Amino acid sequence: MSSNQLDKKSEAWSALFSEPMSELVKRYTASVFFDKRLWQADIQGSLAHAEMLAAQGIIGASDLADIQRGMAQITSEIEAGTFQWQLDLEDVHLNIEARLTQLVGDAGKRLHTGRSRNDQVATDVRLWLRGETDLIIGLLTDLQRALVEVAERNVEVILPGFTHLQVAQPVSFAHHLLAYVEMFSRDAERFADVRRRTNRLPLGSAALAGTTYPLDRERVAKTLGMEGVCQNSLDGVSDRDFAIEFTAAASLCMVHISRLSEELILWMSQNFGFVKIADRFTTGSSIMPQKKNPDVPELARGKTGRVVGHLMGLITLMKGQPLAYNKDNQEDKEPLFDTVDTLKDTLRIFAEMVGGQVNPATGAKEGGITVNAAAMEAAANKGYATATDLADYLVKKGLPFRDAHETVAHAVKAATSHNCDLSELPLTVLQGFHPSIEKDVYGVLSLRGSLSARNTLGGTAPAQVREQIARHRTRLG
Amino acid sequence: MSSNQLDKKSEAWSALFSEPMSELVKRYTASVFFDKRLWQADIQGSLAHAEMLAAQGIIGASDLADIQRGMAQITSEIEAGTFQWQLDLEDVHLNIEARLTQLVGDAGKRLHTGRSRNDQVATDVRLWLRGETDLIIGLLTDLQRALVEVAERNVEVILPGFTHLQVAQPVSFAHHLLAYVEMFSRDAERFADVRRRTNRLPLGSAALAGTTYPLDRERVAKTLGMEGVCQNSLDGVSDRDFAIEFTAAASLCMVHISRLSEELILWMSQNFGFVKIADRFTTGSSIMPQKKNPDVPELARGKTGRVVGHLMGLITLMKGQPLAYNKDNQEDKEPLFDTVDTLKDTLRIFAEMVGGQVNPATGAKEGGITVNAAAMEAAANKGYATATDLADYLVKKGLPFRDAHETVAHAVKAATSHNCDLSELPLTVLQGFHPSIEKDVYGVLSLRGSLSARNTLGGTAPAQVREQIARHRTRLG
Amino acid sequence: MSSNQLDKKSEAWSALFSEPMSELVKRYTASVFFDKRLWQADIQGSLAHAEMLAAQGIIGASDLADIQRGMAQITSEIEAGTFQWQLDLEDVHLNIEARLTQLVGDAGKRLHTGRSRNDQVATDVRLWLRGETDLIIGLLTDLQRALVEVAERNVEVILPGFTHLQVAQPVSFAHHLLAYVEMFSRDAERFADVRRRTNRLPLGSAALAGTTYPLDRERVAKTLGMEGVCQNSLDGVSDRDFAIEFTAAASLCMVHISRLSEELILWMSQNFGFVKIADRFTTGSSIMPQKKNPDVPELARGKTGRVVGHLMGLITLMKGQPLAYNKDNQEDKEPLFDTVDTLKDTLRIFAEMVGGQVNPATGAKEGGITVNAAAMEAAANKGYATATDLADYLVKKGLPFRDAHETVAHAVKAATSHNCDLSELPLTVLQGFHPSIEKDVYGVLSLRGSLSARNTLGGTAPAQVREQIARHRTRLG
Amino acid sequence: MSSNQLDKKSEAWSALFSEPMSELVKRYTASVFFDKRLWQADIQGSLAHAEMLAAQGIIGASDLADIQRGMAQITSEIEAGTFQWQLDLEDVHLNIEARLTQLVGDAGKRLHTGRSRNDQVATDVRLWLRGETDLIIGLLTDLQRALVEVAERNVEVILPGFTHLQVAQPVSFAHHLLAYVEMFSRDAERFADVRRRTNRLPLGSAALAGTTYPLDRERVAKTLGMEGVCQNSLDGVSDRDFAIEFTAAASLCMVHISRLSEELILWMSQNFGFVKIADRFTTGSSIMPQKKNPDVPELARGKTGRVVGHLMGLITLMKGQPLAYNKDNQEDKEPLFDTVDTLKDTLRIFAEMVGGQVNPATGAKEGGITVNAAAMEAAANKGYATATDLADYLVKKGLPFRDAHETVAHAVKAATSHNCDLSELPLTVLQGFHPSIEKDVYGVLSLRGSLSARNTLGGTAPAQVREQIARHRTRLG
Repeated sequence: MSSNQLDKKSEAWSALFSEPMSELVKRYTASVFFDKRLWQADIQGSLAHAEMLAAQGIIGASDLADIQRGMAQITSEIEAGTFQWQLDLEDVHLNIEARLTQLVGDAGKRLHTGRSRNDQVATDVRLWLRGETDLIIGLLTDLQRALVEVAERNVEVILPGFTHLQVAQPVSFAHHLLAYVEMFSRDAERFADVRRRTNRLPLGSAALAGTTYPLDRERVAKTLGMEGVCQNSLDGVSDRDFAIEFTAAASLCMVHISRLSEELILWMSQNFGFVKIADRFTTGSSIMPQKKNPDVPELARGKTGRVVGHLMGLITLMKGQPLAYNKDNQEDKEPLFDTVDTLKDTLRIFAEMVGGQVNPATGAKEGGITVNAAAMEAAANKGYATATDLADYLVKKGLPFRDAHETVAHAVKAATSHNCDLSELPLTVLQGFHPSIEKDVYGVLSLRGSLSARNTLGGTAPAQVREQIARHRTRLG
Repeated sequence: MSSNQLDKKSEAWSALFSEPMSELVKRYTASVFFDKRLWQADIQGSLAHAEMLAAQGIIGASDLADIQRGMAQITSEIEAGTFQWQLDLEDVHLNIEARLTQLVGDAGKRLHTGRSRNDQVATDVRLWLRGETDLIIGLLTDLQRALVEVAERNVEVILPGFTHLQVAQPVSFAHHLLAYVEMFSRDAERFADVRRRTNRLPLGSAALAGTTYPLDRERVAKTLGMEGVCQNSLDGVSDRDFAIEFTAAASLCMVHISRLSEELILWMSQNFGFVKIADRFTTGSSIMPQKKNPDVPELARGKTGRVVGHLMGLITLMKGQPLAYNKDNQEDKEPLFDTVDTLKDTLRIFAEMVGGQVNPATGAKEGGITVNAAAMEAAANKGYATATDLADYLVKKGLPFRDAHETVAHAVKAATSHNCDLSELPLTVLQGFHPSIEKDVYGVLSLRGSLSARNTLGGTAPAQVREQIARHRTRLG
Repeated sequence: MSSNQLDKKSEAWSALFSEPMSELVKRYTASVFFDKRLWQADIQGSLAHAEMLAAQGIIGASDLADIQRGMAQITSEIEAGTFQWQLDLEDVHLNIEARLTQLVGDAGKRLHTGRSRNDQVATDVRLWLRGETDLIIGLLTDLQRALVEVAERNVEVILPGFTHLQVAQPVSFAHHLLAYVEMFSRDAERFADVRRRTNRLPLGSAALAGTTYPLDRERVAKTLGMEGVCQNSLDGVSDRDFAIEFTAAASLCMVHISRLSEELILWMSQNFGFVKIADRFTTGSSIMPQKKNPDVPELARGKTGRVVGHLMGLITLMKGQPLAYNKDNQEDKEPLFDTVDTLKDTLRIFAEMVGGQVNPATGAKEGGITVNAAAMEAAANKGYATATDLADYLVKKGLPFRDAHETVAHAVKAATSHNCDLSELPLTVLQGFHPSIEKDVYGVLSLRGSLSARNTLGGTAPAQVREQIARHRTRLG
Repeated sequence: MSSNQLDKKSEAWSALFSEPMSELVKRYTASVFFDKRLWQADIQGSLAHAEMLAAQGIIGASDLADIQRGMAQITSEIEAGTFQWQLDLEDVHLNIEARLTQLVGDAGKRLHTGRSRNDQVATDVRLWLRGETDLIIGLLTDLQRALVEVAERNVEVILPGFTHLQVAQPVSFAHHLLAYVEMFSRDAERFADVRRRTNRLPLGSAALAGTTYPLDRERVAKTLGMEGVCQNSLDGVSDRDFAIEFTAAASLCMVHISRLSEELILWMSQNFGFVKIADRFTTGSSIMPQKKNPDVPELARGKTGRVVGHLMGLITLMKGQPLAYNKDNQEDKEPLFDTVDTLKDTLRIFAEMVGGQVNPATGAKEGGITVNAAAMEAAANKGYATATDLADYLVKKGLPFRDAHETVAHAVKAATSHNCDLSELPLTVLQGFHPSIEKDVYGVLSLRGSLSARNTLGGTAPAQVREQIARHRTRLG
């Protein structure tokens, strides 16, 4: 009985099984080809477990030393690309454990004392996701910084603010970009909340009921930098809330990306012509030689579906599962991995597409979005964007808001029939709508006047926008 | 121009419009039949807005008094059921404002100064959802308490713990119920996080760009008990993150409910017979006279789909929307309302179904789930639930874990072929598998021995379970 | 035992039950407030069942006559609004049956012979959905007709065809509208397929296993106009494929509506100004007096999420359900009902919004979308829309396509730097890019020349578009 | 200009572009690593296109010959694994075209005449999906056959039929399996419908507007075995209905798989013990030596989420996209590919897991599910499964059904309190519930009597089940 039982996996699971798996079933049930990316977390978790086993006297000091030596060797092999991943060994855990036992013998066989793959895989995924969450929060900071930088250069640039895609009121282009900073900042908040619930230790739950060995779970948690210990073993092995919660946060973040993408695509359309993105984020057409297509924003908008699909998949997966661990849960990994990859790539590319990248020669950032301020301002002049200002002007002259609103509707109707802007109507005509209108109305009817007048917290007045930029600069460090 | 323009809504929107809406379009676009449930939040928000307008000198003190008087009257009318909701007035906001103007004249028309329906509706929904979130957190506490109470009575009851729905290891029935306490406790944490992001004030964002009136938004936030002010007006009117985030938290909570339901349904099936729920949570059959069906758990499991559907609907809604407000957003309300209703009803019923309700005559709780401990224990004896204990026994005798595992597989195979439990194999037979096995093995092979041995943090040993119950008692107050 | 047991429902289900349902549980589990809309199907199904029972001698002729008389009475009561729907009687089936028994005594109690609510409700929903599917197919025809009518008036109107929202090639506006006719025509095909699978009879499956009475199920199917009989009773009561399939078809149809809506919203934006829709499909703003917002297309785009959410809800509902009927299935109705309502309203409104409605005074259609051909053509002139035509011109002169493509890219670059269109470059400049270019190139570079040149099946040349219009006219009748 | 422009892709798209893509952007936007699986369809489509171009005189006969020769060479290279796929060339189309031009020069550059990647990729995906759909329909036939075979051996085996997972009525195990045959047969119907709509030719739509070359699209459709031509070029390049429709059909099929899986998992649980599946579809535990877990059904149940997620992703992708082609659409492929892979693997494994596989030595099938008829029958005896039969017995004695139902409820209550089955109550006791009960009641109360009595179309009587098996045998060939 001294041989390594794991080597027999290609024959049969244990003495209890009368036949090995078929190749198709092996491929269907194996996870090693996608879960091997958990290898660092798996080794990190095993080392913390072994260190505690030794401290508790469950394994000997020499066993621990053997395990540490073996894991160092395995780390080198994986990093060097020489590690032999075997489908027959199902998953990352058995692949590493089998190799460990090859390398260090019985100490390797002792590593699994007091744990099960059920709590091991839950620990690995949490450790890995914690690291990825930190990266994502960092990328969200980069993207926010890029938006703030572009905003800083465009505080005075006037964009037609839309509601219902109809010209509504003039807004600062910087103000518009800062709306996305708010969104991505909420995303970062959410990921921080998810991280907190992810960063708890299931290890020690064993298969489902805890273990008969005198484990010190809090020691392991501390070694791994985790904020707490899962307090119920059944829950510990079956809880996938953190994966669903993470994917929900990622979906919301991608929804924000899809909104920014939609706007970039609109703004780059010839009928807008508000911005350009650098050529390296666009592609041409195999047939139409004039095309320069905003591929990256379109693809990002499309990838929103991908992430949302993963959220739906994970919820469907967990719905109605009885306790404790069921094999269904193996399906949690691929959607989670793909969500992380998609989100990281997208955020990285967007930060660069918006803000450009540092030219090593000059140290300056280059290649971010190019703004066509003239086109934006021209568009803002199209749709009676200052009509609300006229209504507010009348209110200040004493009219109740609702009456002022109706008066201005008449004025807009007249201007439309004359095919001109409100500011182009002669004073006498304007006074025909209400006698209180005086010459100072034209200041109110200008885009810049309208902009500056919205000077309360959160408003689009340049003064407010500059304060927000300062706040974000401080916040983002 | 002194007449109430809102009264003309049935004719046309304003002077700018050449025709009124058709009846079908009115019905299609109106929201009053579902958003009228926001009436309290709408009035609360309006009063805070009016109070600030007066404090800032934007409206007069008498206007404020008129508005307060009018709103008190409207509150009475709505509570009395005499308020006339009109489809022609589209939504809760215009219905209330039109009535206010009928009641108090020009002051009513001044209320909308410095705001728009865009920031008004966003404020209303947030206020309303904040209140509902608090109710839901309370219901989650009730359900956790009910589970803890039942757990407390069943610490020593042995259930077959399943993985893969195969008998795995014996667990305390209390321990099993506490796994759900962990889930619902995480749900409450999540709702608290969502509440924090919900409880921010969009009012003052106006249509999209802020306003020209010198509003004091932080005053309004304080009046309304909000934790902060939305810092960007474009984001303020278009942000529906809180609705999606809430629905995601609700979906996860319903997934937990679906898991508990699945188990209750299984446990009530004749092949398990582990528990009964009170008759009032079951129904019979129109054709099969013997039936008593677990309707409530089944329906709750089904309603998981409903809530998940709402989450998917809301994400689809927001995907790719350009800034700022678009009419699409009106579709945020019905899914949110139905999610809240479904979740509240479900949690309330589950708390009672699990824990029973207080009998006013005796003051004691009655009618919670009834546990058949004998059936549970009989089932736990079926599947070699203590095989892991035998392996652990061998490890303590010096075998590496992997070898012990394989040895026990042989023993199980033998027991299966003898159609008996491991504990029923004679000592000599057991020693045939490994010579280190001694008489003390039979303590290890008993269900109760196995249970008590899992005595580490989070494990199923009665001592651990009692500590958890004490912790929950303290936590839940 | 001669009293009506159904009257006791508010007390307890049957002698087997020790307590009645609580009010909350009643509300939670009852369906009568939404399933009463099935009443016609329920009565229709019951009459067919009774007729067959009599024909088979299972009930007497006088029982049948009593049932028919009672059902006629109930029909009158429901149509008159005098029928008393009772929550205590749970659902539409028990409400009608209880009233029938009140009206006609024992014959009413005999109606349920050989059936169960499980097969009854499945039959009702299928009958109802069949009728709604027919209405929807009719509405799809109306919408297609409206699109074809507008197309017919706009064959020669030139729109910039976009890919990636970048100007690609000129297309006929009619051609563009006909793309949507293709989509809605596929939707109608799909609904016809769903109808076929919906139109099968579960009745006779009884609770789950069939019945001991000598039913003639094919007779009932024939009476009800159904195309076949569900061949397996377990499947008959648990199959909700038709509901999911219907909702999937509806989701796809709403996706098409969302695409058309997106385009209408773009086209109505001031930066496009391509079309107007009638005022009655738009609304104004409570704050911005100049606004005329495309509410209907926006809301329709938003309602896509609603229907997609229902699809996801239904799939989640059915996932993992064991056979046969489970109470979860009650949750199939609300999403299905709301999907039908949403789709019908949307299609009806879109047909009118696109094509207008008949003015009863003149008999002519009025109020459909208004096309601004000049704005479309101006936009088509912005993005080198005929660059592909120049490449094709060069190919006809002997260049391989890939080389022609690259040559034209150089020409576009030059035109861009001169800020002019390709057709505005002098011949000598064009010849600088390739010597084979001659004077006839200017015909190729005109929008109209480009349009007419795409004269193959499915292309945008007016001749092709007219052929398609003729085909649709024939097809749509 | 005679060099191959495609070789420069790593530098810049065309003369119009000032910089190449960054590596990250290349990876983000490239599709070659997943779309290369379309290579056969791509070559097949190109050959049909070239053949038509030559027949129409658009390219010369020698060009066609060169293209055919080049494509034969490329086919060999890909099959041999020597083809060099290049990320710089983005996708399968450009990779193959670039290699073709390397091999045959200008003829390769002429291949793209009159087409665009937009219509090319749409054609490729449709051709590929058509083939996969045929394979899936074949696998559905295999699975149905396997179920019918097992059914055939188990017509007389009695299973407790459940509703609400409560014992309802006895059913034949064969009858139960045939319910799944109905489901998978509907799935096959649906896939046939999808195939019809997939099998239409977009090629000739070019970029979006058709082409200036005199293509014969119907000739290409005929060459490729397609049933029709997409009649509108804009729709041709932007239609992804077939992908969504396919994924919806696949989701429904996986929902059926999830239901069967749920039942297999239940049936294998020790509390049921109804069936076993072969060891090669199960796995053991790393910690619990006694475990034999139904991994394959669990994983399949989990993979339902995956496919449903893809459906959600695709719908989200298409929602709100304006015409015509947008880069978002590139995201259609991975979900579609993974859906196909998942479904094929799952169906193949289930056919074998249910029905076993042919032993080449004996020619007999081995290794399908093993049925424990005694356990099933014992379970059927637990829950008063014949109560409905007693009610029907009373109806035949003249009681109205509702009264009979109530009478039996009393009898069940009595039997429960005596802890015995209805058939174990003495005749005198039974007669106490109704005097018309006579000795023949005991035939009615037996499981087998109950089963045989349900002898109408679709019922569970063995005679009916045998007829269904015969029908399926004929249908499945």
